[in-house]
Amino acid sequence: MKDIEVDEFFMEKAICLARNGVGKVNPNPLVGAVIVKNSKIIAEGYHKKYGDFHAERDAIFNYLKENGGDREGLNGATMYVTLTPCCHWGKQPPCTDAIIENKISRVVIGSRDPNPLVGEKSIKILEDAGIEVKRDCLKEECDRLNDVFFKYIQKKQPYVVMKYAMTADGKIATKTNESKWITGEGALKYVHTLRNKYKGIMVGINTVLVDDPMLNCRLEAEDITEVRNPIRIICDSKLRIPMDSNIVKTANQYPTIIATAFSEFENGEINIDKIKNSKELKEVDEETLNKIFELRFRGIILINAVKSNSNLKSKSKIKVDLKTLMSFLGEIGIDGILLEGGATLNEDALKSEVVDEIICFIAPKIFGGKAKSPVEGLGISKIEEAYKLSLKNLEKLGGDVMIGYKVCKKY
Amino acid sequence: MKDIEVDEFFMEKAICLARNGVGKVNPNPLVGAVIVKNSKIIAEGYHKKYGDFHAERDAIFNYLKENGGDREGLNGATMYVTLTPCCHWGKQPPCTDAIIENKISRVVIGSRDPNPLVGEKSIKILEDAGIEVKRDCLKEECDRLNDVFFKYIQKKQPYVVMKYAMTADGKIATKTNESKWITGEGALKYVHTLRNKYKGIMVGINTVLVDDPMLNCRLEAEDITEVRNPIRIICDSKLRIPMDSNIVKTANQYPTIIATAFSEFENGEINIDKIKNSKELKEVDEETLNKIFELRFRGIILINAVKSNSNLKSKSKIKVDLKTLMSFLGEIGIDGILLEGGATLNEDALKSEVVDEIICFIAPKIFGGKAKSPVEGLGISKIEEAYKLSLKNLEKLGGDVMIGYKVCKKY
Repeated sequence: MKDIEVDEFFMEKAICLARNGVGKVNPNPLVGAVIVKNSKIIAEGYHKKYGDFHAERDAIFNYLKENGGDREGLNGATMYVTLTPCCHWGKQPPCTDAIIENKISRVVIGSRDPNPLVGEKSIKILEDAGIEVKRDCLKEECDRLNDVFFKYIQKKQPYVVMKYAMTADGKIATKTNESKWITGEGALKYVHTLRNKYKGIMVGINTVLVDDPMLNCRLEAEDITEVRNPIRIICDSKLRIPMDSNIVKTANQYPTIIATAFSEFENGEINIDKIKNSKELKEVDEETLNKIFELRFRGIILINAVKSNSNLKSKSKIKVDLKTLMSFLGEIGIDGILLEGGATLNEDALKSEVVDEIICFIAPKIFGGKAKSPVEGLGISKIEEAYKLSLKNLEKLGGDVMIGYKVCKKY
Repeated sequence: MKDIEVDEFFMEKAICLARNGVGKVNPNPLVGAVIVKNSKIIAEGYHKKYGDFHAERDAIFNYLKENGGDREGLNGATMYVTLTPCCHWGKQPPCTDAIIENKISRVVIGSRDPNPLVGEKSIKILEDAGIEVKRDCLKEECDRLNDVFFKYIQKKQPYVVMKYAMTADGKIATKTNESKWITGEGALKYVHTLRNKYKGIMVGINTVLVDDPMLNCRLEAEDITEVRNPIRIICDSKLRIPMDSNIVKTANQYPTIIATAFSEFENGEINIDKIKNSKELKEVDEETLNKIFELRFRGIILINAVKSNSNLKSKSKIKVDLKTLMSFLGEIGIDGILLEGGATLNEDALKSEVVDEIICFIAPKIFGGKAKSPVEGLGISKIEEAYKLSLKNLEKLGGDVMIGYKVCKKY
C-alpha cells in the first residue's frame, strides 16, 4: 500500500465508526476517529450521543482505559478523524488539547470545519504543538456523513430529504388511489431507518386525511440499538386535521407539530393567551379556535407560517409558507426533515427551494392510467425550467431500485 | 484458478466475442467460441453475419489459417462455445462434424439449444466420438445474449423491448408536451445502439403526428463497424399518417411497415389487387383507398391486424391488435422490436402481453404538474393487478439511470 492508500484505508474505518451515531448526535455532527501506530489500529472512537465525548476524546479514552491510563503508547501515533477537531469549550473541552496532551504525533482530517476560521485555528494550534496535520483525506465521503450538520450550522434551517416510492411508470398510487404497498420489504425497512435518522418527518394534511398514518419509526430491536421516533410535522394550512386521526390520538406519545397559515395570527408558535383575549379575529371561526385550544391541550405545537407581505386576494387561499416554516423549525432545533409529502406538498417544497436531497424508490411494477405521480402541483412548461438534480447514489433493494439525488440549487 | 473458474474465464471471453455479431446475425443467435490448449487461447471465432460460418467453424477456420492448415495442434484442445453446436445442415454444414473432424477433445457449452431434442442429439454425437462435453457453463449469461433468438425460435414472434425516458418524477414530457430532450447524451447514444440491435422499431401514430420522427439509427462510424437501420413499424389503425411526414418521405430509404385496423380488410398484408376490384367496401372511403395505393407505391408495407371475432359496436373504434400484428411481423422475419411508443401504445402492448423487456431511463430532473407518464391508457385499479417486472440490470449513464426489467408473464 502506498502512503495515501494507508491514510484512506484508516479514514474509511473512521467513517464507519462515525455512522454509529446516526439518529443520536443531532444537532451535533457524526464524527469517528481511529488511532493508528505501526500500521495497526490501537484505539477507536466516535461521537455517541449529543453531550457525550467527541470522537477524538472517545478514542483516546478507549486507549487509556485499555492500557491502565498509560499514555506512552500514543507517542508517535496517528489519529484519523472525519472532521477537524474543535478548539473551543462546548459541552466538552477542546479536542485539540486532548490530542496535544496525549502526545499524538500526526493528525489526518477528513471534513473541514464549517466555520473556516475555527478550522484553521484548530490546525494552527496542532501544528504549533509540533503535530503534523494532513487535511481533506476522503473529504467528500466525510462531508457526506454530515449533510444535515453542515446545512444546519450554516443556515440554521433543517436539511430536507424528499422521499417517495413510485412504480416503473412513475405512479405513487393506482387510479383509485391504492398505494399500500408499492415497494417491497427492503425499501420499507430502509424508510424506517431514515425516520430514525432525521429529527423530523413532514407530510401534508391530505396524506393524513387519506392514509391516517402514524409516522413513527417501526424498526425491530435487532436492526438498531435504540429507536428514535421523529418529530411529526403536519402542514395543515386551515387546520383540517380530524381530532380522531392517529396523529392527534397519539400526540401524547410522539412529539407533533402542526403548521397553519392564518393571516390573522402572527408567524411562529401560535400564542394561545393572545388568542384568548383577542376580540379582533374575523376570519378564524369559533370552531377553529376551540380546535387550537384542544390540540394545544394535547401537547401539539402549532406554528403559524405565512409569507410576509402575502398579497393574496382570498385569505382562505393562503397556505403554509415552507421557507418561513423551515426557519421556525430550525430555531427550535430541528436540523433534518424527512419529507414524505404527497404530490402537492412535494412540488411546493421544490418551488420553495427548501429541498436538499431526493430519495426515490422505484418498484418493479407498472400501474398505467392517469394516476398520481410523485410531484404535481402546477409544474413547469419548458424543459429548461425543470428542477435539476444530481445523481448521488444508486442501489438495488431487493427488486426495488433506490436513487439518491442532490437538488441543484438555483441560488 | 480452480477448474471451474478456468472454464468460466474462457466462456466469458466467448461471450464477448459473440457480442460482435449484434445487429448482423438476426434471426440467427449470437454465438462466440474460443479454442484453448494448455490454458492458452489458440483461436477465437464468432458468428459474424446471417449465412456466414457459425462460431465453431469460424474459430477452427481461424486456427487453420494461422497454422497453414495443420490441424494437429487442435488435438487435445478444449472448445468453449456459448450455444450448443448444431448437428444439422442449414446454410452451413453441422458444427458437430467440424469439431469431430478437427479432433477437438473437450467441448464446454453455455446455452442449451432451444429445441432440447436437437441439443441432446448434438451432445450425443460429440460424446459418441469420444469428446468430453460439459454443459451449462455461465448458462444464464449465455442465455441473455440471445433473448431475441430464444423467443423467436420458439414462438415465431418478435421479442419486444419497451423503451422510455422519464424524469425522476415519472414524466415523459412537460405539461405543454415538451420532450426534447429529457435524458443526456449517454442515454441517447445508448438508444441508438438499441436501434441498431433490434430488427424493428415501433411507434404509434400519435408519436408520428407530434414528433415527426425519422426512427433511424444515428451512430457515428467510430462507435460501430456497420450501422443497420431498423425496420420502422407504425401502428396507425385508421391510416392517419401525413403524406408529408418524415416517415413517408424517407420510405424509399428505410424499410417501413404501417399497421392498420380496418374491419373490411383481411388480416395480413393488405392485398391491393383485391381492393382494386372490390365493390363491397363501405367503411373505407375513397381518400383512404388512394392513400393505401400511394403508400404502397412508395414501398411501404401495409399490414392489417384486427382481432378475430372483434365484437366492437363501432367499427371506427377498432384498433390494431398487437398480438395479431406480432404474429405477422414474426412471419416476415422480424425477430426483435424496440418499442418507443407513447403512453397509450405502451399500455396497449403490456395489456396485449407482447412485451418481454422494459428499458427505463430516468433523468435527473423534476417536471411536476399533471404531465404525461410513460404508460397510461386505462390502467389498473388494485395494486395486485399491476404488471409485474423483475429487475434485470441497473446502470448509470452520466447523470441518467438506466433500469432494465424483464416483464413477468401472466401466462
